[in-house]
Amino acid sequence: MFPPSITLVTLGVTNLDRARAFYAALGWEAAAESQETVVFIQLAGQVLGLFPLDELAKDQGRPGAALGTGAATLARNLGSREEVDAAFALALSAGATALKRPEAVFWGGYSGYFADPDGHVWEVAHNPFWPLAKDGSLTLPSLGT
Amino acid sequence: MFPPSITLVTLGVTNLDRARAFYAALGWEAAAESQETVVFIQLAGQVLGLFPLDELAKDQGRPGAALGTGAATLARNLGSREEVDAAFALALSAGATALKRPEAVFWGGYSGYFADPDGHVWEVAHNPFWPLAKDGSLTLPSLGT
Repeated sequence: MFPPSITLVTLGVTNLDRARAFYAALGWEAAAESQETVVFIQLAGQVLGLFPLDELAKDQGRPGAALGTGAATLARNLGSREEVDAAFALALSAGATALKRPEAVFWGGYSGYFADPDGHVWEVAHNPFWPLAKDGSLTLPSLGT
Repeated sequence: MFPPSITLVTLGVTNLDRARAFYAALGWEAAAESQETVVFIQLAGQVLGLFPLDELAKDQGRPGAALGTGAATLARNLGSREEVDAAFALALSAGATALKRPEAVFWGGYSGYFADPDGHVWEVAHNPFWPLAKDGSLTLPSLGT
């Protein structure tokens, strides 16, 4: 059995202090479980980890491997276009690199992309067809109650 | 404001049918919102998307970019070592590549890594110090109720 959920998303980083500071500037504070060599941030129902890239490669059982970014994107849906613009601006002020400024997109929503200091790609989006729960969690409409 | 949660994790894939079949073999079924060119799978409180790599690069505002994998790992914590072994075996039977077979690790838990057919890295782990809620969600002990 492999129950469908993700409990922990770990991002490999080249400079842990820089990564911690970037996410703290978003308002994403390191939890007490963080240590000198790893940062843990509580998200809704799951945890975000920041971990040195070389340590991550070792942990994956392939020390020295060059690990890449970009093909896995992490998105935060938000309740309106204005919230998307505000989150995007906050990310840039925290040191993110803009990949695509928020704009209306073909599927009827509004979306922008940025990269964190290590190249991890985030999307902020408003999807009027996929309403969020009050806690920010997302259940697909076909599965909603 | 950038509320700390991830609503959607999108994995770029080179063959959408193969990726859909791999996750279906884990028991992760495509939801009705899926279309010919994108697959959506409901996870606990968030959604997993499978999307062609070249389309993902375009969506990110950088058509033609080579997107990499491995530096962002997705973990599923489970309730016991036996559950980790079973999930790992299921993933291999579904076509995953073993990176590190589950083993006792220095932080006191038990963890294995595999890559999906497109190189996206998953960890299955048991962490006796971080109990899971009944719905599979993870709250750090320092923040628990």
